[in-house]
Amino acid sequence: MNLSRAAAAEADRNDPLAPFRDRFSAPKDPRRLYLDGNSLGCQPAAAPVAVAKALDAWRDDQILAWRDWIKLPRRLGDAMAGPVLEAQSGEIVFADSTSIDLYKLAAAALGARTGRPRIVTSDDNFPTDLYVLQSLARQFSLELVQVPADPTEGLDLRVLAEAVDARTALVCLSHVAYRSGALLDMKAFTRVAHAVDALVLWDLSHSAGAVAVPLESSGADLAAGCSYKYLNGGPGAPAYVYVRRELQDRLQQPLWGWFGRRDQFRMANDFEPAEGIDRFLSGAPSILSSVAIEPGIQLLAEAGIGALQEKGRQLTELIVRLADEWLAPFGVSLASPRDSRKRGSHVTLRHSDAKAIVKSLIADAVIPDFRPPDLIRLGPAPLYTRHVDVWDAMDRFRSICAR
Amino acid sequence: MNLSRAAAAEADRNDPLAPFRDRFSAPKDPRRLYLDGNSLGCQPAAAPVAVAKALDAWRDDQILAWRDWIKLPRRLGDAMAGPVLEAQSGEIVFADSTSIDLYKLAAAALGARTGRPRIVTSDDNFPTDLYVLQSLARQFSLELVQVPADPTEGLDLRVLAEAVDARTALVCLSHVAYRSGALLDMKAFTRVAHAVDALVLWDLSHSAGAVAVPLESSGADLAAGCSYKYLNGGPGAPAYVYVRRELQDRLQQPLWGWFGRRDQFRMANDFEPAEGIDRFLSGAPSILSSVAIEPGIQLLAEAGIGALQEKGRQLTELIVRLADEWLAPFGVSLASPRDSRKRGSHVTLRHSDAKAIVKSLIADAVIPDFRPPDLIRLGPAPLYTRHVDVWDAMDRFRSICAR
Repeated sequence: MNLSRAAAAEADRNDPLAPFRDRFSAPKDPRRLYLDGNSLGCQPAAAPVAVAKALDAWRDDQILAWRDWIKLPRRLGDAMAGPVLEAQSGEIVFADSTSIDLYKLAAAALGARTGRPRIVTSDDNFPTDLYVLQSLARQFSLELVQVPADPTEGLDLRVLAEAVDARTALVCLSHVAYRSGALLDMKAFTRVAHAVDALVLWDLSHSAGAVAVPLESSGADLAAGCSYKYLNGGPGAPAYVYVRRELQDRLQQPLWGWFGRRDQFRMANDFEPAEGIDRFLSGAPSILSSVAIEPGIQLLAEAGIGALQEKGRQLTELIVRLADEWLAPFGVSLASPRDSRKRGSHVTLRHSDAKAIVKSLIADAVIPDFRPPDLIRLGPAPLYTRHVDVWDAMDRFRSICAR
Repeated sequence: MNLSRAAAAEADRNDPLAPFRDRFSAPKDPRRLYLDGNSLGCQPAAAPVAVAKALDAWRDDQILAWRDWIKLPRRLGDAMAGPVLEAQSGEIVFADSTSIDLYKLAAAALGARTGRPRIVTSDDNFPTDLYVLQSLARQFSLELVQVPADPTEGLDLRVLAEAVDARTALVCLSHVAYRSGALLDMKAFTRVAHAVDALVLWDLSHSAGAVAVPLESSGADLAAGCSYKYLNGGPGAPAYVYVRRELQDRLQQPLWGWFGRRDQFRMANDFEPAEGIDRFLSGAPSILSSVAIEPGIQLLAEAGIGALQEKGRQLTELIVRLADEWLAPFGVSLASPRDSRKRGSHVTLRHSDAKAIVKSLIADAVIPDFRPPDLIRLGPAPLYTRHVDVWDAMDRFRSICAR
């Protein structure tokens, strides 16, 4: 691999996804190199247009605008199903935050596996996932097993296989680990959970929009994820839930609310869950934040997840090679899987001065993020990050180390 | 009371709140008479400006914009405390939807009253409140008592007093009933709950921004409410929770998430609740929907809740008088308290053809809302509804009845 800037520029010229960069609004600072699409995705140029349209509807149609808005959580879900996540129409709905959605799904799964006293997760799952499971374990006197994952390579399939048995009600895992970027084999891990008849709940926050998510072919039961990373839905935009169709009417989530009731506007005094995925709704969706999600999903659908994953691999590979070449001499080491097939679209580097390095990078208009105590995450987003952006960012990184 | 249009116009000329109408964006249809501020408040002219600013921050500052956004849920809460709700700084935070917030607060209250097997509410509480309580009762094998309220006058204090005793963990009530508009005496009802050492949770959705909410002087423990009605926060905008300061560190809500953890960005693997009101947060707030809330709160603070409540009384009184005079002959009856001191800022009328009447009103650019089976809710909002708007709307209502 040629590590020259010219080679990076050449890769950009050959990049079939290159035109998508212009579908995003550029930040004011022309020197800005953004490598934090894994925390907050950039702004699709169509997002402010969608928000303005919703603001106009609020102003002009007022309450009557709900005739359209009421369909939004399902419409967004259906737009994801197929192009972004391997799922069918009616299996995904947008609602609340990832934390709340994980709670709903985990609680619903536990309700379908009463008598089984254990929840199994891994210690590289995202903190909010762990907190949700800890709360459920505490409330319902269950045991939460946080099996150790390799901090760099992620959870080993055999470690999970040893941890699950007939006592396991639920297995909850991140498809891509938030720190290391380790990508789990959804099919293999789901098979292990299903072998003991446990349900499996996937957190897709760091994988959706960056890598293929084989929910359907893996037989995954449940999933949730945020929309503000690779989906580019905007800050704190509502999350989504996926529930495999044949499970929907057998599961009941505990956060009952009027949007999850059958025949909502009858305003009945007794709760009866809606049929299908709608029973996973609770209260009113935040419309201004929800409408901003649609353009990002459309861009991903247009680009195609195969091309996105391939470009993600190229970009992260470039980071790994440049880190080896330029940064290793300064004590920077790789904290992500070296095999690009085992990574999502971010790479994590380790250095004892990570915090100070991140501060210097930001001062030099390179935006990664810092994860304590010693990790620097670099998340190029295949839709809008160029090879030269990665090259230039790593070049500035090298200069900072050299100072 | 002079019921002429000229008298209504004269009342508008003398209205100290009249200038606030121009602080809202007018809908496109100049004939539109909006009487549904109790469902979705109109758009403050400053709201699209606030949203545009957040969109610019997303585009330009990207992830770094969270330095400000992270403070937003508390800043909005502090802006409410005092001018809108009788509360102190640090007692209110914005998060999630009303349904989710009610769940958190009710569950936290039950956790503080273990051993008490009952929850008491009234059957005119909003459906989502009832669903939340039904879910908790089912999960924790508690009894939910839905005491009967008078459909027009609301819950009688003596009925509640008879229903609560040492078995009561929690009393949950709507400050203003969503159908009848009946306004409960917060001090008296809280006293009844506290007399048996139960905690009390108030739903403020239909009262906040329209009437005084004496949380502090009544000693109310907990409250939640939506921001899209009289707060004019926009469609599905995030809700808020109030927790009396001395209770905050003694209560634990079950929807654990990273935004509710002490020292969130340490990303620790074990949950430990934040101190104070922040422990009632769960996941990331929807920023585009949250920033739109601030202008509405500022308008209410500027107007003053006393003046708002007084004008609300005048407007609802005008509806009641005109309904008596013009609509009663057509079989329309009042389904709200006749005493304006016992009402919030909406009036509900009953007619067997309510659904058809609402349809005709909307066709004639008058926007009320329909509540099955036979109720028409008219919600003038003291910040932007004029007396002549009410008069004209009732005039069109009369014409529809006459046809």
